[in-house]
Amino acid sequence: MKRVLYFSILLFAVLSNRAAAQEGPIFPKGEKSPNVHHVGNVWLRELNSPDSVFTYGTSVAIFDAGARLDWHSHPGGQILIITEGIGYYQEKGKPKQIVRRGEVVKCLPGVEHWHGATPESGVTYIATSPSQNGKTIWLHPVSKEEYNSKK
Amino acid sequence: MKRVLYFSILLFAVLSNRAAAQEGPIFPKGEKSPNVHHVGNVWLRELNSPDSVFTYGTSVAIFDAGARLDWHSHPGGQILIITEGIGYYQEKGKPKQIVRRGEVVKCLPGVEHWHGATPESGVTYIATSPSQNGKTIWLHPVSKEEYNSKK
Repeated sequence: MKRVLYFSILLFAVLSNRAAAQEGPIFPKGEKSPNVHHVGNVWLRELNSPDSVFTYGTSVAIFDAGARLDWHSHPGGQILIITEGIGYYQEKGKPKQIVRRGEVVKCLPGVEHWHGATPESGVTYIATSPSQNGKTIWLHPVSKEEYNSKK
Repeated sequence: MKRVLYFSILLFAVLSNRAAAQEGPIFPKGEKSPNVHHVGNVWLRELNSPDSVFTYGTSVAIFDAGARLDWHSHPGGQILIITEGIGYYQEKGKPKQIVRRGEVVKCLPGVEHWHGATPESGVTYIATSPSQNGKTIWLHPVSKEEYNSKK
């Protein structure tokens, strides 16, 4: 019985230590976004807003499993750097891609697309968005068929 | 004794599962940088190079514990997003800061500074660098006194 106790303490200690050192989400969640252009739970946090020196915005977006943005396009394009979890990314007329932690997606100006979490896993990404050509153009929600499609 | 075995299996299973899911480095190391402008082991990987659409470069830099860049400045400035570990960041005439996973540093154009890992922990960051005003200007190595200073 003592051994069980020792192993329980060891298990707890290892997990706590790893958690304290490097685990858990990298970024605080920031403010929960109102469900205007997405389905599910999404948190957005701006790391820098564009100005005359840094002519691009940088944000962290955190999606709960199942959450996804509406179809949209960026007049200046956008680069997504996936830092946690597993998500979907789809451009109009192309198959849905699975994107994972460590991967990078470059979305060119004007390309209609959507991104979000998979049904089973949340996803977090850093987005950098050139600001010189204007803000995101929102289109229409992703249909259930599009979201659940295997293609 | 059986219980010890069960707990060992549980411990192994929990750790393996966590490792497979989300742990280990986010980004592959890329190419090890030759020691021209830094001390210690540094790996640099370009995520995008600047072009007419994305007028900033994005790179991942991975530093082993103890590694640090020379003093330098960026004609266009730079934003650092710490994704793993613990590092140092210092601007000329200011105290050395400790920067941790999840933190963001905005370095303005022309400001002399250096960054790197702490002696005990490696650090990884994503750097975005506006390209329009030219490349990094390298100055001189960080002295041992500067690196080890508590200020």
